[in-house]
Amino acid sequence: MRELLPFRVEARDGNARAGTLQTPRGVVQTPIFMPVGTVGTVKSLMPDELEALGAQIILANTYHLYLRPGEPVLEQHGGLHRMMGWDRPILTDSGGYQFFSLRHLARFDRDGVTFQSHVDGSRHRFTPERVIDIQRTIGSDVMMVLDHCSELPAPRAALERAMATTTDWALRSLRHVVERPAERDGAVFAILQGGTEHDLRVRHRDELCAHEFDGFAVGGLSVGEAPAVMYDVLETAVPGMPQERPRYLMGVGRPEDLVAGIERGVDMFDCVMPTRNARNGGTFTRTGRLNMRNGRHRTDERPIDERCGCPACRRFTRSYILHLFRTNEMLGPRLVTLHNLHYYLDLVTEARAAIAAGRFASWAAETRSGWAAAGESS
Amino acid sequence: MRELLPFRVEARDGNARAGTLQTPRGVVQTPIFMPVGTVGTVKSLMPDELEALGAQIILANTYHLYLRPGEPVLEQHGGLHRMMGWDRPILTDSGGYQFFSLRHLARFDRDGVTFQSHVDGSRHRFTPERVIDIQRTIGSDVMMVLDHCSELPAPRAALERAMATTTDWALRSLRHVVERPAERDGAVFAILQGGTEHDLRVRHRDELCAHEFDGFAVGGLSVGEAPAVMYDVLETAVPGMPQERPRYLMGVGRPEDLVAGIERGVDMFDCVMPTRNARNGGTFTRTGRLNMRNGRHRTDERPIDERCGCPACRRFTRSYILHLFRTNEMLGPRLVTLHNLHYYLDLVTEARAAIAAGRFASWAAETRSGWAAAGESS
Repeated sequence: MRELLPFRVEARDGNARAGTLQTPRGVVQTPIFMPVGTVGTVKSLMPDELEALGAQIILANTYHLYLRPGEPVLEQHGGLHRMMGWDRPILTDSGGYQFFSLRHLARFDRDGVTFQSHVDGSRHRFTPERVIDIQRTIGSDVMMVLDHCSELPAPRAALERAMATTTDWALRSLRHVVERPAERDGAVFAILQGGTEHDLRVRHRDELCAHEFDGFAVGGLSVGEAPAVMYDVLETAVPGMPQERPRYLMGVGRPEDLVAGIERGVDMFDCVMPTRNARNGGTFTRTGRLNMRNGRHRTDERPIDERCGCPACRRFTRSYILHLFRTNEMLGPRLVTLHNLHYYLDLVTEARAAIAAGRFASWAAETRSGWAAAGESS
Repeated sequence: MRELLPFRVEARDGNARAGTLQTPRGVVQTPIFMPVGTVGTVKSLMPDELEALGAQIILANTYHLYLRPGEPVLEQHGGLHRMMGWDRPILTDSGGYQFFSLRHLARFDRDGVTFQSHVDGSRHRFTPERVIDIQRTIGSDVMMVLDHCSELPAPRAALERAMATTTDWALRSLRHVVERPAERDGAVFAILQGGTEHDLRVRHRDELCAHEFDGFAVGGLSVGEAPAVMYDVLETAVPGMPQERPRYLMGVGRPEDLVAGIERGVDMFDCVMPTRNARNGGTFTRTGRLNMRNGRHRTDERPIDERCGCPACRRFTRSYILHLFRTNEMLGPRLVTLHNLHYYLDLVTEARAAIAAGRFASWAAETRSGWAAAGESS
């Protein structure tokens, strides 16, 4: 039997959980949000800024890092941590989602995926074992198995085929780690598929959860379905997962999705929204969203959020940030990125404290009413 | 008589000087390089990063700030310092150089300049007095007078007309400050023109230096002439300027131009090169220039400069920086900007120490031989 990634649930409130993941590169307190550093940089930020924001773990991407900088460069650096100057844990996505979003460049078969690089059109092949090996080269602390994500809506038969492939590949990935262990292996998380068909989600969950994965992820959501539909799937699939294993909702989402996910027992999240929206001036705050490119901030001397202690809000006015966006200055996206990540990390920290105090429901209600109160009108 | 900006020359070595400028916002030790923050941000950096690099004074631009964010916004913030979060001195260029580089949009007359905004084509007018008033709104610590910079080569008659206008405007600027003092005025620097005609440079210097300006700038250089031509003009014009006043060479230049300028008695420099080149991967080092976009760095685990202590060189490899440029990541330009400014600021600090120690000539020779030794081949 494998020695599983140490994870302890410290408090429960309804389905919501507060836990601790013990990785060799440090502790991760859940629920947690993982800033996205696709190619080995959380856009515009230095690693010490991420640390100062309280980021405990970040996400990087196997597909993207395989293409650039490539395995030889990663290997030479002894992995991504040293290359990017980040000492805390890194979770790596497998590439499964990229083969979904770049599906015109990818062809699935029983054994793996043949694809063309979106960078230069060159041809490559990923198998479940290959993807584990690349993640080992990256030095990943949490490795995701290669999965097959379906476009929605999909016929049940297509969802079932993708599930069968995903299960087979998950087991192959696990077997590869068990039978050919590396000197130092990251944890292995399986990925649950099944689209928005509740019975398929349950069946796939039970299939995967019978095996010794370190954690279980919910994939194939936030691909166009309504939030309520996604929440229903989580409600069906997540609470029945093993209590003693971490659960990760992949690529989701808005602050309201994080609260809804935590409510349904999710422990880990990642999403490009706080960093991607930041590059267009989109901010997240306690009172909803604000766009820093909006001309009405022209003479507004308030910070993005008056109650926020992030490096942007401590020092700069909305007026200045609007000016930076109008003049296409890099500092604009950087300030909003700092603010948004601070907000997301703060949100999950608050959720954790509320769970520990047994007042998650009232915290969630207050948080939601804060967003509803104002938003763009603040 | 006006009370002039306190400036003390502490050491001389040949024509080179080490001095101290005492501004209400802090001391500036010369020779100094001023990072360029055209619209109120040194591209990609936070003010605390600039401070950590040892920047003592930065440059901002009256023309650009007048257009964006505009006087009302600057006024509301109580000036640029508070708006951009920078507490140390700011020198503001007058806009004269912008009317030269955007000359298709500007029309000079006896009294001032009528111009179209390069942003939206709207029409505006600057007079010498207006430009002082805008700089007061910015809260500038060193205000440059509006000047007329000539395209080179130019007929002598054209240079003489531009000089006459520049002198007239410089005296009007000074009179405006003296006769209608603001609550708190920055220093006023005159700008010397005259192209590459040595007798005109001498004549213009003597005209301007007869008046009570806080400092004297050399304008109209580095506009296409050969470096040796520029150095000869400096040799003619600078050493004869009043010893007890600071001298500023505007918009220049490469590290070798700084050394040549200091050698000829210049105290202050600004240039976009360290920040602009950084955005294309161009670095400056002790051993010459390196381009971080060059594929030969692909597996190079050395920092940009092994002897450099900047935040980029302390932590990141050339290989990683190349990767950031190849993937168009903002962190690439940011890291090279940090390195380049560190290099420029370090260079003037070293020059100052060499002057104080009476070994400027040997320091300059060593510095030059370092650049010559390697460069792109390192």
